[in-house]
Amino acid sequence: MARWQPDARGRLEAAALELFRERGFEETTVADIATRAGLDKRTFYRLFGDKREALFSGSGRLEEILVKAVAETDAAPFEAVVAAFRRVAEDLFADRLELVRMRHSIIASSPELQERELRKTGALAAAVTVALRANGLDESTAILATESGATVFRVAYARWIAPDSDATLADLIDEVAAELRTVTSAPRER
Amino acid sequence: MARWQPDARGRLEAAALELFRERGFEETTVADIATRAGLDKRTFYRLFGDKREALFSGSGRLEEILVKAVAETDAAPFEAVVAAFRRVAEDLFADRLELVRMRHSIIASSPELQERELRKTGALAAAVTVALRANGLDESTAILATESGATVFRVAYARWIAPDSDATLADLIDEVAAELRTVTSAPRER
Repeated sequence: MARWQPDARGRLEAAALELFRERGFEETTVADIATRAGLDKRTFYRLFGDKREALFSGSGRLEEILVKAVAETDAAPFEAVVAAFRRVAEDLFADRLELVRMRHSIIASSPELQERELRKTGALAAAVTVALRANGLDESTAILATESGATVFRVAYARWIAPDSDATLADLIDEVAAELRTVTSAPRER
Repeated sequence: MARWQPDARGRLEAAALELFRERGFEETTVADIATRAGLDKRTFYRLFGDKREALFSGSGRLEEILVKAVAETDAAPFEAVVAAFRRVAEDLFADRLELVRMRHSIIASSPELQERELRKTGALAAAVTVALRANGLDESTAILATESGATVFRVAYARWIAPDSDATLADLIDEVAAELRTVTSAPRER
């Protein structure tokens, strides 16, 4: 579980998160972030490309974990995707609830950030589908397993960051996966 | 099944679709659209607000059909959402495959249009969840049924507009719903 490292990237991420919370995303400039981190704007742009990206640098690592977990499993497709998200919950999110809540409320404050979040999520899903197909699955099954697993993760995540939550994200993922299974199972009449 | 009506709204929508296809979305102005429809820019802005909206005026009707279908049913939640999308397929999409394909390729050509499509889809899902909750469902079940039904619709829709497709959208929805049920059902080992 990587903590904020005292490297340039980690310092800039932490400074961005602090400033976005203190002043708002719109009101914070890249120069502000660099100054807070004791670095210069050039370093920021070299590492992140743009201001928004300081909130999304975890997505590369997230994709890596998901794709690796899916590639290594021999579980059924939906179980494989759910297990991959559980791995992410354990390796990337555990012990970081406050950080994740803060990031979430910053993103919720800006349509521009929400758009980037949607695109990143779409790219992640596409990568998981590709990994499932590489396991020999047909495209439809791969897409349905990915989308259903992503739904489980989204709902579990929302429950996890809710103010009154005290379960772990990994446990919530299991709980929601079971609920989704019940909801989509054949109706009782049959 | 409403056809293009010879009213201002319908003429502007048809003109916009033609011009977006002929010249591209970016290259078409609101003035071009109004001229092609034999109307003025003011009329366009009064009816649509902005250029993008000429491609999304069907979404109000779509939401209306979905919400009504969900409100009236006593089926299990996932079945209710799937049946609502099937209703949309029959009332709004049947006999319009070429139009839908054209609209789809225009949207695929522009990130700006894709963003609006994503937001409209999000708003639709929220409305369906509210309608399910009004039926007395708890929030998690309502969200899981909505998201799973929306996944079925998305995958069926992609299959329907694919170049070599010849099934109806309604039949594809049933087919994909059955596939999703299989994918998310408990693994065989148990």
